[in-house]
Amino acid sequence: MSKVITPRAEDYSAWYLDIVKNANLADNSAVRGCMVIKPYGYAIWENMRDALDLRFKATGHVNAYFPLFVPKSLFEAEEKNAEGFAKECAVVTHYRLKNDASRPGKLMVDPEAKLEEELVVRPTSEAIIWNTYRDWIQSYRDLPLLINQWANVVRWEMRTRPFLRTAEFLWQEGHTAHATKEEAIAETVTMLDVYADFAENVMAMPVIKGVKSANERFAGAEDTYCIEALMQDGKALQAGTSHFLGQNFAKAFEVKYLNKDNQQEYVWATSWGVSTRLIGALIMVHSDDAGLVLPPKLAPMQVVIVPIPNAVSPVIEECDRLAAELRSHGVRVHIDTDETKRSGFKFAEYEMRGVPVRVAIGKRDIENGTLEIARRDTKEKQTYPMADSSGIIRALLDEIQQNLYNRAKEYRDAHITHVNSFDEFKEVLETKGGFISAHWDGTGETEERIKELTKATIRCIPLDAANEDGVCVLSGAPSKQRVLFAKAY
Amino acid sequence: MSKVITPRAEDYSAWYLDIVKNANLADNSAVRGCMVIKPYGYAIWENMRDALDLRFKATGHVNAYFPLFVPKSLFEAEEKNAEGFAKECAVVTHYRLKNDASRPGKLMVDPEAKLEEELVVRPTSEAIIWNTYRDWIQSYRDLPLLINQWANVVRWEMRTRPFLRTAEFLWQEGHTAHATKEEAIAETVTMLDVYADFAENVMAMPVIKGVKSANERFAGAEDTYCIEALMQDGKALQAGTSHFLGQNFAKAFEVKYLNKDNQQEYVWATSWGVSTRLIGALIMVHSDDAGLVLPPKLAPMQVVIVPIPNAVSPVIEECDRLAAELRSHGVRVHIDTDETKRSGFKFAEYEMRGVPVRVAIGKRDIENGTLEIARRDTKEKQTYPMADSSGIIRALLDEIQQNLYNRAKEYRDAHITHVNSFDEFKEVLETKGGFISAHWDGTGETEERIKELTKATIRCIPLDAANEDGVCVLSGAPSKQRVLFAKAY
Repeated sequence: MSKVITPRAEDYSAWYLDIVKNANLADNSAVRGCMVIKPYGYAIWENMRDALDLRFKATGHVNAYFPLFVPKSLFEAEEKNAEGFAKECAVVTHYRLKNDASRPGKLMVDPEAKLEEELVVRPTSEAIIWNTYRDWIQSYRDLPLLINQWANVVRWEMRTRPFLRTAEFLWQEGHTAHATKEEAIAETVTMLDVYADFAENVMAMPVIKGVKSANERFAGAEDTYCIEALMQDGKALQAGTSHFLGQNFAKAFEVKYLNKDNQQEYVWATSWGVSTRLIGALIMVHSDDAGLVLPPKLAPMQVVIVPIPNAVSPVIEECDRLAAELRSHGVRVHIDTDETKRSGFKFAEYEMRGVPVRVAIGKRDIENGTLEIARRDTKEKQTYPMADSSGIIRALLDEIQQNLYNRAKEYRDAHITHVNSFDEFKEVLETKGGFISAHWDGTGETEERIKELTKATIRCIPLDAANEDGVCVLSGAPSKQRVLFAKAY
Repeated sequence: MSKVITPRAEDYSAWYLDIVKNANLADNSAVRGCMVIKPYGYAIWENMRDALDLRFKATGHVNAYFPLFVPKSLFEAEEKNAEGFAKECAVVTHYRLKNDASRPGKLMVDPEAKLEEELVVRPTSEAIIWNTYRDWIQSYRDLPLLINQWANVVRWEMRTRPFLRTAEFLWQEGHTAHATKEEAIAETVTMLDVYADFAENVMAMPVIKGVKSANERFAGAEDTYCIEALMQDGKALQAGTSHFLGQNFAKAFEVKYLNKDNQQEYVWATSWGVSTRLIGALIMVHSDDAGLVLPPKLAPMQVVIVPIPNAVSPVIEECDRLAAELRSHGVRVHIDTDETKRSGFKFAEYEMRGVPVRVAIGKRDIENGTLEIARRDTKEKQTYPMADSSGIIRALLDEIQQNLYNRAKEYRDAHITHVNSFDEFKEVLETKGGFISAHWDGTGETEERIKELTKATIRCIPLDAANEDGVCVLSGAPSKQRVLFAKAY
């Protein structure tokens, strides 16, 4: 109860940081821009990882692990990719420290241990992986190669925020190789669908599937597909990307295969990734001024049971019985028997941490054969008969999962606004926010100009956009479909 | 069948590298001393990780994630630890690359982007973690803190070998904080027991639990507990360590807590870890001249079913039925329907990859209601009735797991030799190898001298060693118990 959160309406950014801190998700570290992911935050990431990994394996992928370091000469081989990441690379130049003769007990970099070739700490692994694929791919029989990696990557960001933008982050990166362009594009779309399914059905976060404009494309890709979500402050967040890389990396690393006609051809590539950034999205889509709100499928504790008073017979036996019953159905349950804290304090704490369902069982309940169930999403409390409680709680977990999705979708849908003039564009952006659906002439110049004038970028060209004749809101040039603009994280 | 393995008797080291390569476990990379863990090798690591993680959580630990980088000033704070790792540290000195004006298309380290303080790529995380624990621990109520991390670490090794010694490797590192010395020591021993249980019951690898001599202790520890295994060439391998760190890190990072008497005290610490090195041990304990041999509990494929001829009715239906039946019992099954390869080739391939059970089903089998089951450990083949096959195979998997353990234990036990003179010591070491149980005077000088003369080190002082009066094999000074010497990986 002593923890206080800045209300969203007052300062959304402060609210976000308060949630991260008070819900025990992450902490700052001694390393500029790097966070510590605390056990509760990491448990959410473990649940995300497991749900994604299951989907990757179900679509035929396997995991592998490639080196953290990329020699500079490999890093620079695919020029566009190298250019895109060069400005934010951590570089290893030495491999030894030695005693600093002038400062007893202190160490210094040993100048004698300078590397012949500098090593880049991977900001992404295309270079090191495609350099390896050259040895793994000889013939069409070796294709497709469908590999994913769970790893840490480093991008030296100047302005950081926990989960949303950190110098080091955890992610998965899929890197696949295919015999044909069509197959590679199909893979790109398949993985976009996997991400959308995960976002909507696990994170309870509605997303729009689309394609990035050339300006927003991944460095080295021919096409970048993405899922875009809307946060409660009306800003968009790119939640996952799937890139069709064409033959760019195959050509940069000379990866060819012998086709069925006995001819050498360059391989086609995709890559796709999501990161711990998703935890930032999760926070900003569902949480409220009382703290974190978690969808049951990702909550480390789905149900917390608080005996009142603590650990006293027969209350504790009833708590144990219910917990055992729920666990036998795969529900993640915690019983809080901490005697040093009062139940009011505990209630506030579990609310802060976003536990979907809170059960309180008191002495009076035992007499009446009842218990009290509180749901985190609506904060409703209700008394139920003890006898049916396991089934009620399990149904409630499903209902909360669905309710969170519906609520987020309602907000998102209400914040896609069609505009037909640039004045309207600016007004909606400033007063309402959200996605702005507008005609655009398809040029990078116009996109850049709109960004300069409004800070809004093209989030995506939606895959399901209807053909519609119109004129660009800025240039007045003809356009065949609307695209989605927004300010973004 | 085209893949050939050097026999162990001819060149054990070449045999090891052949297994790593031909069983598709790992590959060299473009980065000095770093390997690529291939999908099949990584799948073994995933199984190890899951089995360990389950045990860590069952003993009350949670996972978290700390930064990859350690600022030099933190790294050097615990002096012994810093000294122990300084000579093998990868150091990040810059955070940006820029175009090299003299070499178009090439990049160079941007001298303007030099870090004020160098960052060490973690060789282990005590420093960064204990610097964080200072903020997390105020009172006895915050203790014990039981945290584990799954991560990559880097130690710049000059001579590397896949899995056994690589510059980058994957591992888990537990870091716990306790109110009392006794509790910290109990944790150290608990985690040693967890490792021993995992090694023996999952890896089927017998281990000896013991304590390291002062010379072999982890840098910064008060006591290092370890599990030691014996490889088929008679060399020992340290398979896991659990360190009692005393108050060394608490003092270096000023981590104190308020005890129940309202007094500030330094916290007590442990750390413990196992790494991808265990895959090297797994290979060397069980495999033979035909390839990898895997214990069923870790095998990515526990059973492979080969239809003969390929995918032809009714053979394939019978394969599918058996696979479904086995999978319903949680068995990992693969059906090989690749029509481009002959069954003889497939048999050799699965033997090479160490799949514990191979099932062949042919047309004749369908008529007879039989199938052929081959076990990898003994290479025995036998025909069984189709009707009982699922139960037979599951029982066989258990039997193979047990047989591998028994076989390894028999070898290990036969290679612990008691010696009572230094001549005997040298002779046994050169002719028979294995562990040598000998009296030692307890001094670092004697230990060092024995290492210089024989290359054998003290692997551990076994926890279950009996008190026995004797004299040191080298110095003749009195000794109260035998310790285990061996040449080691």
